[in-house]
Amino acid sequence: MKRRLLLQQIKDFFGQQVKRILFVPYALHDRDAYTKTARDKLQTLGGGNTFRLLKTLYDNNLVTEIRKRVLQDGVPYMGSSAGSNVATISINTTNDMPIVYPPSFSAIGLVPFNINPHYLDTDPNSRHMGETREQRIVQYHEEPDTPSVLGLREGSMLLVEGNKATLLGSTRARLFQRGKKTSEYEPGSDLSFLMSDVQ
Amino acid sequence: MKRRLLLQQIKDFFGQQVKRILFVPYALHDRDAYTKTARDKLQTLGGGNTFRLLKTLYDNNLVTEIRKRVLQDGVPYMGSSAGSNVATISINTTNDMPIVYPPSFSAIGLVPFNINPHYLDTDPNSRHMGETREQRIVQYHEEPDTPSVLGLREGSMLLVEGNKATLLGSTRARLFQRGKKTSEYEPGSDLSFLMSDVQ
Repeated sequence: MKRRLLLQQIKDFFGQQVKRILFVPYALHDRDAYTKTARDKLQTLGGGNTFRLLKTLYDNNLVTEIRKRVLQDGVPYMGSSAGSNVATISINTTNDMPIVYPPSFSAIGLVPFNINPHYLDTDPNSRHMGETREQRIVQYHEEPDTPSVLGLREGSMLLVEGNKATLLGSTRARLFQRGKKTSEYEPGSDLSFLMSDVQ
Repeated sequence: MKRRLLLQQIKDFFGQQVKRILFVPYALHDRDAYTKTARDKLQTLGGGNTFRLLKTLYDNNLVTEIRKRVLQDGVPYMGSSAGSNVATISINTTNDMPIVYPPSFSAIGLVPFNINPHYLDTDPNSRHMGETREQRIVQYHEEPDTPSVLGLREGSMLLVEGNKATLLGSTRARLFQRGKKTSEYEPGSDLSFLMSDVQ
């Protein structure tokens, strides 16, 4: 996504009345440096490690607290990469390495589905023998009662306001639903149906 | 690795006296199909999902049992990808998606270090904004008391006999040690020092 567009959308999201933003730096080891970087240039909200972020949120009893503040009190939440994974129902579709063991893969649950950030299309020329991203998500859906997974390519963001969900940014998103055909959505698409996703 | 070389090394490993091989198909959903494929062509021992494999080993009380059979009774163990991750001290350095929640990331522990299979060198031309493999392993080593990580590129295998560990195959391996400089090893290298890896 173009940096100016991203910054404008962040400004729109937080609105004029917001004076302070709480930045949660748990996903990287050097929290002071991470906070400084995030403050200096918003474009580097790279996210860090999802397992470390979620474990530290649990260690500090913040999972339920953040859910409450956002869903009940209407405090805006913005997450990028690891920060988007922990905002969903679980971190089962993170791409990160499991460097620490959180007490659960259940996450803040601001939305009833999962996100796969940095979604990568399959490269037919790759000699890499690991699974493709699509194969990984398909394997997730072989497990019972697994929710939808929204694959967000670089340049995409999802704006959620109440029960309304809209795809923003400059790239398409790929939606995986258990037992259904995978589908593609253009920027601007209304994805509100995902907010009533039930397994 | 060339298929013929791989098959010869597997044959050497199991030896002439082995009559039956127990194949553990837990890492993929369709176990019958997976077993058939593995039987038909050994080259497709792709491994499957590490989290699913480890969880199912725990569900069936096989983690300690396999450790005992291998370390005490000398039964040969061969693992590829997910199968190599679960053979090590923990699955903290798998590349797989955490599609299920195992009761622990501790694994069979046949060796006192970790493996990162399908190790990928950093692509300077990539537009992907996720972490590189090296960054992920470095983040793992920011955690306290974390063991060495052997990054095995496609084409590498590690032969462990008692306290002797030898790198085999056709590509180099990259070794990450907490607080030390990362190093590269050629095929044929003696990596036995890893067998006394202590954190």
